[in-house]
Amino acid sequence: LNSGTSRDGVSGAIFRVGVLEAPLRIKLLAHSEYQYPAWLRKELDRAGHTPFLESVSRLNFLLGEFFAKCALLMMGENKLRADQIDLIGSHGQTIGHFPTLEKIRGFGIRATLQIAEPSVIAARTGITTVGDFRPGEIAAGGQGAPVLTYPEYLLFFSAKKNRMILNLGGIANFSLLPKIPDPGKIRASDCGPCNLLLDGLAEIITRGRKKFDRDGKMAGSGRARPDWVGAFLRHPFFKKPAPKSAGREEFSREWLNRVLKGLRVRSDRDRKDLIRSGSRAVAEMVARCYFDNGRGLEAEEIIVSGGGSRNPVLLGELKQALKKKMILSDDLGIPAQAKEPIGFGILAALCLLGQAGNVTPATGARTRAVLGKIIPSENWLKLIRGLKSGTREGR
Amino acid sequence: LNSGTSRDGVSGAIFRVGVLEAPLRIKLLAHSEYQYPAWLRKELDRAGHTPFLESVSRLNFLLGEFFAKCALLMMGENKLRADQIDLIGSHGQTIGHFPTLEKIRGFGIRATLQIAEPSVIAARTGITTVGDFRPGEIAAGGQGAPVLTYPEYLLFFSAKKNRMILNLGGIANFSLLPKIPDPGKIRASDCGPCNLLLDGLAEIITRGRKKFDRDGKMAGSGRARPDWVGAFLRHPFFKKPAPKSAGREEFSREWLNRVLKGLRVRSDRDRKDLIRSGSRAVAEMVARCYFDNGRGLEAEEIIVSGGGSRNPVLLGELKQALKKKMILSDDLGIPAQAKEPIGFGILAALCLLGQAGNVTPATGARTRAVLGKIIPSENWLKLIRGLKSGTREGR
Repeated sequence: LNSGTSRDGVSGAIFRVGVLEAPLRIKLLAHSEYQYPAWLRKELDRAGHTPFLESVSRLNFLLGEFFAKCALLMMGENKLRADQIDLIGSHGQTIGHFPTLEKIRGFGIRATLQIAEPSVIAARTGITTVGDFRPGEIAAGGQGAPVLTYPEYLLFFSAKKNRMILNLGGIANFSLLPKIPDPGKIRASDCGPCNLLLDGLAEIITRGRKKFDRDGKMAGSGRARPDWVGAFLRHPFFKKPAPKSAGREEFSREWLNRVLKGLRVRSDRDRKDLIRSGSRAVAEMVARCYFDNGRGLEAEEIIVSGGGSRNPVLLGELKQALKKKMILSDDLGIPAQAKEPIGFGILAALCLLGQAGNVTPATGARTRAVLGKIIPSENWLKLIRGLKSGTREGR
Repeated sequence: LNSGTSRDGVSGAIFRVGVLEAPLRIKLLAHSEYQYPAWLRKELDRAGHTPFLESVSRLNFLLGEFFAKCALLMMGENKLRADQIDLIGSHGQTIGHFPTLEKIRGFGIRATLQIAEPSVIAARTGITTVGDFRPGEIAAGGQGAPVLTYPEYLLFFSAKKNRMILNLGGIANFSLLPKIPDPGKIRASDCGPCNLLLDGLAEIITRGRKKFDRDGKMAGSGRARPDWVGAFLRHPFFKKPAPKSAGREEFSREWLNRVLKGLRVRSDRDRKDLIRSGSRAVAEMVARCYFDNGRGLEAEEIIVSGGGSRNPVLLGELKQALKKKMILSDDLGIPAQAKEPIGFGILAALCLLGQAGNVTPATGARTRAVLGKIIPSENWLKLIRGLKSGTREGR
């Protein structure tokens, strides 16, 4: 289960997986998305802004109930009983991410905060649940994001071609996977806001009537204006060296409103041009991030996933900026919307097996580290009894 | 490791334990207390009052570093290497506890929030860590407190006598253990504020010069005034049926100041009487809670632990109110200050073995439940390989 930076709902996948080695063989049985109801989205926004302790704490449990319901729904829809599921991996919902190192009384502190209490998921489903993957990454000295690089390596490694895995979610990020099978050689970084920017623009220019620009329709009839594209790229984030981590904190609605103040968006034409300029800016962010970090590791093809992969205008802009062959992850058997929940399911399995889930070059962590917290439920003993044969040493 | 409602520091114990059955045999190797520095106590207070998300999130990681340092210190002081420790159980620090059931959009929600990121403890020590015990209790429909009833049962069960285990910490709570070995017959509840009240009074009447009334010195030279005792007992908490759960939310400094406004505390004599009245009020709270809930389960002896067990005036008041034989837990081989960290270490082991850690009559939970979240660290594979022989089914 996962809910990303866009905070629009829970996406889930049910799949079977064997030994966790690249290239990974998975059998996807189902994947689904469950929209948050409007009031829940509003609660999440409020928690991010006026975060009083009681409301945040209660929201953690409430969201846990919601995630649990999603899991039970998916199981029901796919006629799967709890005893047929070994493990749930749930990322939860990030409501705060603070990757900047602050010295507090001699300790160097970064922080991250995910809610959707995984204990509730384990209790409602009876299935052992692994959640809270990011804190372990931060504890290892990393930035806690991107957190799915290693699962991406397991899923998408190719011995024939260097590949770029490009995620177009709330945030755009990529992993560069060299064709040599060495996770230490992977490069990855957040690039900047993707749907966080484009959805924000769509909402602002339609005065809230539209939450996003479906199929890039508005952007498709506009043209990009170089000075407007530049305005989005003036954020200090783009000057920071990779690997770096972005969130709602950096690219808030307040930031977007500040940028728009400087532009003169008046006519309908202007509005279309604005959203096209936003699309080009996203492509530019990705291209800059790649050209700055990809030296000596040229990607021969790009595997695209995430909600933004459904936006042909954005894909066109990316193709223009990157000049690479682009493949939808769907075409490799991983539907774009299922990739993240699969990634978290893989992280959950790695955690159970005591295997590292992070990749140090992706986040700046000092060490590889097991990520996640295991909440044992009814199948726990059965699960650990089966582990001996599943662990590397056991075979 | 544990830090209780008093928020004054971390207490820890190192011990060896075999099969988790009552009566439990443990070998205590060491126990220690590590005071929070003043600035950290202040941060914790602030987090409880002005809980902005970033500061709370960073505090979670900062406190994790502090807890980890405590563990490493204890290990160093006792010449123990990491590979000699199987498991760390860390309760963390409660900064919010909201046991009142609130209906939110069809879900009945209670909440609790502990910080001191256990992932940091696992990373710094290399030892698999179990933390966050309360959310699983809340997920099972309970109030999340008291959470140590079952470990107390394992530690203190006697086939010869019904026993009351009385904890005099920030909050006073008890467990009534019948001499029949059935956790379903245990009764337990929070009784009311103990050191939260007495330390608060000491601080107020000395205008902050003293943080607590050492050895009950001030209380010893005062006398209890019935109307003042009654004033403390007028709180609506005392009318609620057990099992019930109390925290800083109910018994805040604001509450205490409100109560004191109604009394006329002027002279030095008044101040001594006030703190003696507070001591008697605590004894009354415990007695009422016991007489209301102990019917048909008369305690033949009382095992006392917690910081309050060091206060002879309070013990005298309790003896007067309860008319029972009182034994310090120290005399049964469990130093009063070590009992809670031992309890959390036991909860950690129960979690790893997939055994329930709660007791339904103590918290009103619907079911028994495994409590805690496991963060695998360097010893994980060794640990789970050893589990087969440790589990009930494996023997």
